[in-house]
Amino acid sequence: MRPIIALLTDFGTRDHYAGTMKAVVLGICGDATLVDISHDIPPHDVLTAAMELAASYKYFPAGSIFLVVVDPGVGSPRRGLAVETGDHRFIAPDNGVLTAALRESPPRRMVELTERRYARPTVSKTFEGRDRFAPAAGWLAKGVDLSALGRSAGDYYRLPLPTPEIAETTVTGEVIRVDRFGNLITNIDHKLFDRFSQSAAIEVSAGPHRISRVVATYAEAAGSEPCALFGSTDHLEIAVNGASAAERLGLARGATVTIRRA
Amino acid sequence: MRPIIALLTDFGTRDHYAGTMKAVVLGICGDATLVDISHDIPPHDVLTAAMELAASYKYFPAGSIFLVVVDPGVGSPRRGLAVETGDHRFIAPDNGVLTAALRESPPRRMVELTERRYARPTVSKTFEGRDRFAPAAGWLAKGVDLSALGRSAGDYYRLPLPTPEIAETTVTGEVIRVDRFGNLITNIDHKLFDRFSQSAAIEVSAGPHRISRVVATYAEAAGSEPCALFGSTDHLEIAVNGASAAERLGLARGATVTIRRA
Amino acid sequence: MRPIIALLTDFGTRDHYAGTMKAVVLGICGDATLVDISHDIPPHDVLTAAMELAASYKYFPAGSIFLVVVDPGVGSPRRGLAVETGDHRFIAPDNGVLTAALRESPPRRMVELTERRYARPTVSKTFEGRDRFAPAAGWLAKGVDLSALGRSAGDYYRLPLPTPEIAETTVTGEVIRVDRFGNLITNIDHKLFDRFSQSAAIEVSAGPHRISRVVATYAEAAGSEPCALFGSTDHLEIAVNGASAAERLGLARGATVTIRRA
Repeated sequence: MRPIIALLTDFGTRDHYAGTMKAVVLGICGDATLVDISHDIPPHDVLTAAMELAASYKYFPAGSIFLVVVDPGVGSPRRGLAVETGDHRFIAPDNGVLTAALRESPPRRMVELTERRYARPTVSKTFEGRDRFAPAAGWLAKGVDLSALGRSAGDYYRLPLPTPEIAETTVTGEVIRVDRFGNLITNIDHKLFDRFSQSAAIEVSAGPHRISRVVATYAEAAGSEPCALFGSTDHLEIAVNGASAAERLGLARGATVTIRRA
Repeated sequence: MRPIIALLTDFGTRDHYAGTMKAVVLGICGDATLVDISHDIPPHDVLTAAMELAASYKYFPAGSIFLVVVDPGVGSPRRGLAVETGDHRFIAPDNGVLTAALRESPPRRMVELTERRYARPTVSKTFEGRDRFAPAAGWLAKGVDLSALGRSAGDYYRLPLPTPEIAETTVTGEVIRVDRFGNLITNIDHKLFDRFSQSAAIEVSAGPHRISRVVATYAEAAGSEPCALFGSTDHLEIAVNGASAAERLGLARGATVTIRRA
Repeated sequence: MRPIIALLTDFGTRDHYAGTMKAVVLGICGDATLVDISHDIPPHDVLTAAMELAASYKYFPAGSIFLVVVDPGVGSPRRGLAVETGDHRFIAPDNGVLTAALRESPPRRMVELTERRYARPTVSKTFEGRDRFAPAAGWLAKGVDLSALGRSAGDYYRLPLPTPEIAETTVTGEVIRVDRFGNLITNIDHKLFDRFSQSAAIEVSAGPHRISRVVATYAEAAGSEPCALFGSTDHLEIAVNGASAAERLGLARGATVTIRRA
């Protein structure tokens, strides 16, 4: 089985940066299969990267390595981490970008990337992705044990993730991702929704808009009416069939979404 | 020979969706080589996807598998298909996205993706690409026979493709693709052009614009004058050397292009 | 070791063009690992492609093949080249796109792509990337010797690269790349800077703006103040910590950047 390295960055695809990281990985482990999760995270947006990672990592085969470089603190003393959970390994700056994934899949081992021999000889202060993180991922793929990459890391920085507020008759959540189709994905997951609704009728609002129906598929939504449904990560999302809910409702990340028990 | 899976979607590259489909494929067939045709099909634009697929599939080696997910009807009862032609196999929703490719390379075998064991255990109503189509492609790549994926599918849905109208002295076609360079690619192919022109002089118009010359290469076009030529798929296209014909002429997909025998 | 082919084009990712080139490569050498450097070079922008290639090629393992197709002269008599340097091989049109890379890593062997058997049977006048350059890269990866691809090429076309002007107390350079983060990367490299400054205090200006500090990392820059630093290719760049220097200063490629000895 060839090792898999999945990349998630805010480097975009116009510059050579993502390709250069892959070059470094392949120079260490020529056998690796490289998969792009995304390079189009908005620049420096650690929270979006954390959400995209959490939505995707669990679909990768056991043993996969995630090379996550959204790193506004590049060159500063913030640490670089290598983390092992039950099934996966992660290489990332210690800026909270792993928070959402590790909340679900707690770390078993975690080291700081201090071992110089597993970085490139010269480490640029502006591109540690190339000189420190990519080599670490390559060496893991090549079979080096996580513990060899550096000293034990203790704990990791946790990003404050937006969490729904639960009151007696309402849950107040928010939009945490807007996808390419304009679907508004919230932080209210199916379990919370079911526990809260207890099979009672539920009203959903997104910003100032009442959402009339909770449906199972986009296609069920009548015409161009916004609907609510549980999307592919089992979170409540606001959608418009065949169109962008974000545009139609004028809402973006951070917008309030409320569910209310009648 | 490692199996090739080529992906064509409207998922964009900002969200994790394409990467997650690849993760699922690699979890089934770790040996696969994954190739992106495009993920930037405009959202829900089945016709554009059909055209991009038809322009590219025949350049892939025999045995390649195409995972085509432009799927505005996701979650609805529209079927999922696996299709085998002489050389290639296609996994796609039955919404016409394969029409142009299958018109050239007729199906030999076609099944509906009904066999649950070749889908993920839970199939999201909003992301069948991940849970149904990607696994089907992965299993084909792994060696499962097409017939195992489900029951025989009978026929497939054909998208009405824009076809040129042929009159005595004119052929009226239209722009079916505008590429990144602003070239306007029409549905008038070289064979039709030759059969119609019978070596007589031909006048070309694009929208209200007379195109003065039919040339063999972009470089032959004088200065910034629009020209007509046969592009890489042997279809008549309107181009401007070193610039965008779409911008220069103010034309887009659907614009009328006429050839007239003098 | 599987052969690596790195692609750099201006094809964008919306059209099928890059995917189709990969299809052709894999039809010849199914074992190749394909790496995208970028497909988002601005259309026909040979200079930008030359700069991106120079910034990345040296990080690829020895033996890697670069398939560089930014080719405004497609279909014209401009030549196609295969070039071998000490460690790498390059396939590209002879339009100067290799200038910056070959200036650092001089060619040892160079041939013109004249041997028809290593092109596709029909070569489109508008897509030689697919029909001539991709096959040449595939055959090199497959083990064909460079000399088999065509006749000796003599010399290659050199693009005039913007070079800093050195006067008694000033060096006048310019912005040669603006990256996704809005960093303004100049043609003044670290060696020139050090040789010129001779440890004296240096003032940096970018366009009409005085840049107050030369720092080692983005994080060192105070607040939103523009700073100068040496980036990942060891060139002087103008940056704003956590924001776009290009937007903040209203500067783009070609803007003048001056260093002055006090």
